[in-house]
Amino acid sequence: MAVPTGASTSIILRLEINLEEVSFGKIAAAVSDGGGDIVAVDMIQPGKNSTIRDITVNVYDQSHSNRIVRLVEEIPGVKVINVSDQTFLLHIGGKIEIQPKMPIKNRNDLSRVYTPGVARVCMAIHEKPYRAYSLTIKRNTVAVVSDGSAVLGLGNIGPEAAMPVMEGKAMLFKQLAGVDAFPICLNTQDTEEIISIIKALAPTFGGINLEDIASPRCFEIEQRLTEELDIPVFHDDQHGTAVVMLAGLLNALKLVGKKLEDSKIVISGIGAAGVASTKILLAAGAKNVIGCDREGALTRSQTYDREVWNWYAHNTNPACESGSISEVIKDADVFIGVSAPGVINADDVKRMAKDPIVFAMANPTPEISPDEAEPFVRVMATGRSDYPNQINNVLCFPGLFRGVLDCRASRVTEGMKLAAAKAIASVVSDEELNEQYIIPSVFNQAVAEKVSEAVIAAAYEDGVARRDRKKVMKK
Amino acid sequence: MAVPTGASTSIILRLEINLEEVSFGKIAAAVSDGGGDIVAVDMIQPGKNSTIRDITVNVYDQSHSNRIVRLVEEIPGVKVINVSDQTFLLHIGGKIEIQPKMPIKNRNDLSRVYTPGVARVCMAIHEKPYRAYSLTIKRNTVAVVSDGSAVLGLGNIGPEAAMPVMEGKAMLFKQLAGVDAFPICLNTQDTEEIISIIKALAPTFGGINLEDIASPRCFEIEQRLTEELDIPVFHDDQHGTAVVMLAGLLNALKLVGKKLEDSKIVISGIGAAGVASTKILLAAGAKNVIGCDREGALTRSQTYDREVWNWYAHNTNPACESGSISEVIKDADVFIGVSAPGVINADDVKRMAKDPIVFAMANPTPEISPDEAEPFVRVMATGRSDYPNQINNVLCFPGLFRGVLDCRASRVTEGMKLAAAKAIASVVSDEELNEQYIIPSVFNQAVAEKVSEAVIAAAYEDGVARRDRKKVMKK
Repeated sequence: MAVPTGASTSIILRLEINLEEVSFGKIAAAVSDGGGDIVAVDMIQPGKNSTIRDITVNVYDQSHSNRIVRLVEEIPGVKVINVSDQTFLLHIGGKIEIQPKMPIKNRNDLSRVYTPGVARVCMAIHEKPYRAYSLTIKRNTVAVVSDGSAVLGLGNIGPEAAMPVMEGKAMLFKQLAGVDAFPICLNTQDTEEIISIIKALAPTFGGINLEDIASPRCFEIEQRLTEELDIPVFHDDQHGTAVVMLAGLLNALKLVGKKLEDSKIVISGIGAAGVASTKILLAAGAKNVIGCDREGALTRSQTYDREVWNWYAHNTNPACESGSISEVIKDADVFIGVSAPGVINADDVKRMAKDPIVFAMANPTPEISPDEAEPFVRVMATGRSDYPNQINNVLCFPGLFRGVLDCRASRVTEGMKLAAAKAIASVVSDEELNEQYIIPSVFNQAVAEKVSEAVIAAAYEDGVARRDRKKVMKK
Repeated sequence: MAVPTGASTSIILRLEINLEEVSFGKIAAAVSDGGGDIVAVDMIQPGKNSTIRDITVNVYDQSHSNRIVRLVEEIPGVKVINVSDQTFLLHIGGKIEIQPKMPIKNRNDLSRVYTPGVARVCMAIHEKPYRAYSLTIKRNTVAVVSDGSAVLGLGNIGPEAAMPVMEGKAMLFKQLAGVDAFPICLNTQDTEEIISIIKALAPTFGGINLEDIASPRCFEIEQRLTEELDIPVFHDDQHGTAVVMLAGLLNALKLVGKKLEDSKIVISGIGAAGVASTKILLAAGAKNVIGCDREGALTRSQTYDREVWNWYAHNTNPACESGSISEVIKDADVFIGVSAPGVINADDVKRMAKDPIVFAMANPTPEISPDEAEPFVRVMATGRSDYPNQINNVLCFPGLFRGVLDCRASRVTEGMKLAAAKAIASVVSDEELNEQYIIPSVFNQAVAEKVSEAVIAAAYEDGVARRDRKKVMKK
């Protein structure tokens, strides 16, 4: 087999090799037979009878990697101790670190940043606790808090296993918006306990990003904390998704020449993201939103077990349409999916109004595959990076928290979320706007800055910014 | 007055200057008259009638600074908006930050450190939670947790005001031992709540450094967490002080040719540090320790309200000596003060045995001033940096946590603390050892490494290290 020049990743095989039974040439031949390209060999532990070596091999993907590992394992005298790929290697020891902002070079420095000099700073904050914003990390630091109960599409995997996601988020916070974010994964899934822990943690932080907390617990946690704390609390799975969805939708509607207030919008999935998406759509002016769960459309003629569904039914679906999603999708201008794969099919899309807009955001498999929908939709968006128009929270949270920290907002209002959505949408100019480009790339550096500016302006407008406005503007 | 060439700090005066009433020359003259040295002038806000300028002035100390500010304030047409000194300037925005370990340069990077690639790492930890030690920041990260109830000598100043101390500590952790430490100041002083919060936070961290938590609450918090968590919990105010005190005492006794087991040791102050100091002295072999509170020596013939005092009385003072500290100090070889200024005087020291060793560690004012004690003591140590022999926790906590993280210790044993004390003492060689040098400087780079090596060896000996020993040694 040819050397895989298109290989997109590499793995490292740590092998214990019995020198009497096998030669390195035999191992190299097996890797080669499997289509792998050996790019490095490192001696880890030499020995008379056996050695341990790391063999770095370029491969195409996970299944290619598995095939090569199998071939090597079959060679007598070779024991595969470990297989690391690039993704795992990047995670060794975690992805973030704590850095002092300046070195402590001598006794003078030490007596300023620590005892005895630090005592004067402590007392200055003790006199006026608000000074914590100038004299501690509070000004630029956000907690990313999860209970590990609804992580990515993986479900309830617990606090330890949730950490790599929170660390990744902290990386994005810093790189995209200069925000210091610290990941905290809690070993409890009790609503009251989570609330009281986050309240106790609040003095250290300027904001709280809730993450991957299961519904409906997430609603109460966010609402109570917003009421009881004086720093902003933002459940990204709800509002981040909602903000970025609205940004894309505003541009999609512009493209097809429809207005939000005139559009019939069907939402599939009335969990955390579905409720938040509906709320922001209503706040933005949508009049005809219909939410569907597995049983079909939510209508005010019914009573539901979940409190939030009763609220939902009474504030949406003005024409009281009932039936399955396939029924209510008839003549819809927009489909928003935050549910599960296969919820709609091509026939459903065909029954939508002219120029249908489909946001199929279930991860990793959308409600309808872009390939199936493509012949019938005008604008399609997903949560995936391998299709155009990715609805990705990364477009929202860094700039949003940059904004709330800079103006010392006490909370995140609907107005601030709307402003963030419009700011994201505005990054795509009218000239650039087309069916394949309704939302900027996550690597577009203009996004975080635009979002933060818009969020700050809205925070002052809504009266929740606590910093002298002149100071914020001068920056 | 002459320019203060010995000035040790500088202040920045932000002045609003009415240009019609006053010239800059007049301000410069006033600063000069006050003995200040202007080293920089920065225009902050120009204007026709008035300007705002920052004047940086070298001064000797706080009272010198106050004098100059008064002189400037008296000038008609000058308004002092703000006075910042170096200590405050260093604290603006906090002293630590969170840094990604690598940049996210492109889509490939993003899909490895965040979705979708991160999901495989999450699931690997979900299968074996212990993998959190390899694949998350747990391996190198410690929480520095305070409730703000006993901060430095300042008392119960609350969580916001305690932050600068915890941030300073995080700086020292990183600079001296490469440990990532994150400061968490809790908005609660309830024992049970603190315990349950720290238990919930534990998945993120490899160790917990409790800090500035009042006695007796600190005892129960530490004990319960040590029993209920599988990561080490270390209350630095107790054990850090005890370890460094013992290090200094071992060297002091070596210098005067006495043995710990033969020495009569009087301890003043039976709070957090006093109890821990007593425990480590007993563990190190001391036989005759007498603890004194304000009422005098604790004896087993009495019953006390505090549980820990009853334990104390039954495990110390074998000769059942009673009376005030001035009485029981007679013939003592060692005095250890972790209490308050003025507890002993020169007459007390004179009644001690030959070659008296006095550790007067009350902060910032020792139990007896070094100047008063000097004619009568052989070896004197304090908590202060402006006298020889500073007993400073900074000598212990960075290296100790480096050690427990590297061997993944589940707890800190008495053996590990003893090993740390001996390691600190060993940095002062027999040739170097003298009355003015019984303990290394906090800037001695050998200390953290020696402490960490000793702690690791003791952890394996005591069976609390969980990492394959070969891996630790190879580092």
